[in-house]
Amino acid sequence: MTMDGIDVLLSEVGPRDGLQNVKAVMPTAAKKRWIDALVAAGLREIEVGSFVPAKLLPQLADTAEIVRHARSHPGLTVAVLVPNVRGASDAIAAGAHKLTLPLSVSETHSIANLRQNHEQVLAAARAISALCAEVPEESRPTFEVSLSTVFGCTLEGAIPDDTIRRLSAELMESGCDEIGLSDTTGYATPDAVVHVVDLVRSVAGREAVTGLHLHNTRGLGLANVLAGLSVGITTFDASSGGLGGCPSAPGASGNIVTEDLVFMLESMGKRTGIDLQALITSRSHLAAALPGEPLYGFIADAGLPKGFVPASPPNFRSAA
Amino acid sequence: MTMDGIDVLLSEVGPRDGLQNVKAVMPTAAKKRWIDALVAAGLREIEVGSFVPAKLLPQLADTAEIVRHARSHPGLTVAVLVPNVRGASDAIAAGAHKLTLPLSVSETHSIANLRQNHEQVLAAARAISALCAEVPEESRPTFEVSLSTVFGCTLEGAIPDDTIRRLSAELMESGCDEIGLSDTTGYATPDAVVHVVDLVRSVAGREAVTGLHLHNTRGLGLANVLAGLSVGITTFDASSGGLGGCPSAPGASGNIVTEDLVFMLESMGKRTGIDLQALITSRSHLAAALPGEPLYGFIADAGLPKGFVPASPPNFRSAA
Repeated sequence: MTMDGIDVLLSEVGPRDGLQNVKAVMPTAAKKRWIDALVAAGLREIEVGSFVPAKLLPQLADTAEIVRHARSHPGLTVAVLVPNVRGASDAIAAGAHKLTLPLSVSETHSIANLRQNHEQVLAAARAISALCAEVPEESRPTFEVSLSTVFGCTLEGAIPDDTIRRLSAELMESGCDEIGLSDTTGYATPDAVVHVVDLVRSVAGREAVTGLHLHNTRGLGLANVLAGLSVGITTFDASSGGLGGCPSAPGASGNIVTEDLVFMLESMGKRTGIDLQALITSRSHLAAALPGEPLYGFIADAGLPKGFVPASPPNFRSAA
Repeated sequence: MTMDGIDVLLSEVGPRDGLQNVKAVMPTAAKKRWIDALVAAGLREIEVGSFVPAKLLPQLADTAEIVRHARSHPGLTVAVLVPNVRGASDAIAAGAHKLTLPLSVSETHSIANLRQNHEQVLAAARAISALCAEVPEESRPTFEVSLSTVFGCTLEGAIPDDTIRRLSAELMESGCDEIGLSDTTGYATPDAVVHVVDLVRSVAGREAVTGLHLHNTRGLGLANVLAGLSVGITTFDASSGGLGGCPSAPGASGNIVTEDLVFMLESMGKRTGIDLQALITSRSHLAAALPGEPLYGFIADAGLPKGFVPASPPNFRSAA
């Protein structure tokens, strides 16, 4: 399959998931330059922020301004996290192309992370679907609900299939467009990826389940991507420099590293549309704006193999 | 398939590949305690050293004594690296169960690493096969030749299929028992694993190609294991704490971490026969004997997922 000339879509979550988990506040101008560099490297979807109260996450207080800036890049899908209906309303007003509401299938984690139980989040999903429906079709955002802790929870352990099935059904009834699967805690394994994707698709349909948000907490991030590819997953979240994690899941840290993921996919002949060398170079924006913050990943340190030929042609962006 | 009650055999290379790449010399008594702990955790094959001149690798000067000690563990396959005929002769005298001769398919790397061209290494392979044939059958060691840099070389880049095919054929004629595939430089990718395994098997036969030695230099180590599993590879080399690499391949470092590999395999229902918690605990021998040496891996830091159930039952060793 291809999507507009690419085989796999990478959704860069560093500006949201990454920055919300570092102590320093990245200046707005630096964020804009970083996003510009990511777009120049070929990223086509970026989660640029989260519409949460500035008191809770001062790092993301400028999300509305960042959304407006990111929208100036033609062809870029500007995604944001929304924790509730108010956030969704703000996101729509700012012009975000895609809203993601997290629903933690571990209700214990949901209460710890969002201070809401399942029924409250499902009610929000219904209300946000209704809000989106009011937007004229040509500018209507995509509304995704992300099933977080779906591969297991540090508080509850394994999640019963029945819970996942029930919540998936209720979400589809709520009117959301897509269901994402999120390994909040770094518990996913290759077998679990295949199992959970199949499980949620059996309820929600294949078209509604195309994206995975994986962590590398236990080193299986890229192996889990391979498992996702094997069942036709076409969108993977990843974070430049591996920034990010989940503050409410103890021990959970480390999104998969965008650079390493691009290297694996391109080496497998899968076109991401991303210029890996330009992406690696864009890490300099992080190093400059977040001094002392550790950056992760292997390919940036080890360098490309001698004679490496990526799947995406070098003139991909201009030719696309 | 099962091998004596396990699904995948892990060959621990830390005492050889790991220790030869750290500056400190681990005392013989500490090596013995470490190997004892690895065996107690369930390891069934350990590459305990290398029969190279002590001048070149003082870290492994006690290999003969370590082989004799390791042989005291019933059921353990005691493997060693041999760089040449003399090393093989010493290995046989010491009673090693398995000898591995590296043959770098990149001739440039072969000359840099072993100071021998292909014809010289092939001659050694023939001579070692003849030496092994002289050993009475009941105590005859297995003789493996490992095709190093087979996934690409930092000096030569990609290796042509024809070279791999030709060397594989010559090796099978030399009389070796097995051909291992070694990603010396960390260039392997999931697609390349499948391609090279198929390629070598097309010449050497399926039974002769069962093992992979992978590095994690570019973060794809465990993804490459998944690819290996998909084509029926049953033996994977790995190193406790991720110690090791290859000093003659610039930028190449980092064996895959035994603990992380066990976690992935056991989480996928594949029995390794290894008690993961005991394996993680055995890292204390490295920390004690190699102060300041960094240990790698994710699972040792992140801890097991809540409610994790391994594929190998807890009483595996005693029940086997």
